[in-house]
Amino acid sequence: MNRNLIILALACGSAVSALAAEPAPNGITLPEGYKDWRLLSTHFRTDNNTIRAVLGNDVAIKAAREGKTNPWPDGSVLAKLVWKAAKHEKWETAMEPGAFVHAEFMTKNTARFAATGGWGYARWLGQDQKPYGKDANFVQECVGCHTPVKDSDWVFTHPVKLP
Amino acid sequence: MNRNLIILALACGSAVSALAAEPAPNGITLPEGYKDWRLLSTHFRTDNNTIRAVLGNDVAIKAAREGKTNPWPDGSVLAKLVWKAAKHEKWETAMEPGAFVHAEFMTKNTARFAATGGWGYARWLGQDQKPYGKDANFVQECVGCHTPVKDSDWVFTHPVKLP
Repeated sequence: MNRNLIILALACGSAVSALAAEPAPNGITLPEGYKDWRLLSTHFRTDNNTIRAVLGNDVAIKAAREGKTNPWPDGSVLAKLVWKAAKHEKWETAMEPGAFVHAEFMTKNTARFAATGGWGYARWLGQDQKPYGKDANFVQECVGCHTPVKDSDWVFTHPVKLP
Repeated sequence: MNRNLIILALACGSAVSALAAEPAPNGITLPEGYKDWRLLSTHFRTDNNTIRAVLGNDVAIKAAREGKTNPWPDGSVLAKLVWKAAKHEKWETAMEPGAFVHAEFMTKNTARFAATGGWGYARWLGQDQKPYGKDANFVQECVGCHTPVKDSDWVFTHPVKLP
């Protein structure tokens, strides 16, 4: 392969990886533009030392601000972005996001996801956004963890209160 | 006062409190629409048990994504929203935002805020958004805490890395 072809191949590879993560095993695709979504909440997990931000698409933000989240309306998508927590080098009692762990999503579609409480679950791992799960049954793991909050429409996140 | 006048007075009172927080003692006004700004980072402070989200206005988000944050460009505004951390009732190792503590802002304007490193500081306390500080000298307290990060343009926040 000559030099120009190598450069072209590298450029195409980068473009593809930047544009398209593989769909999750249950067919859910990575929501476009989720990095621009607005804040629903943030969490710190002491058991696995991770820090998280939960963002919502426009439908979810509207529902949260109106207090209409039990149930969340169809079309709501919640994005949970997870990083390993790291000590801030200049403020030793502050934990900040370190390495990116994964992005995970809950998509409300009562009809499509009737078998899992009306929510479709998906997760993409790490900077290369590898879909989580060997097959579509991975969602049983999601549902298992979310069962304690079945009565709040399967959602742990309480939207933050602001003035 | 008859019933209609009472209703009118209550409605006006709500409208005023929702619309206008008092300016900070240094003349900085509460940025409009900051609740809709996008995510820069999130922190957990173990010393005072608070959990925080840092949002940026459009100028700040663009600078962060381009890695041009030392210095941050004029026009950048960073919003730090702070809540007391509370244990999630359904996941005992998860900390979530509880009572709202304050919203604080850094506004980059090299000329206007030359005396404080190019940044204007302001903070509004609690749900009633009471401006912090007895007079304009309150900013010395802000500058004092931010001095350890003077070399990173006085900003503690490292914008999060996402795929």
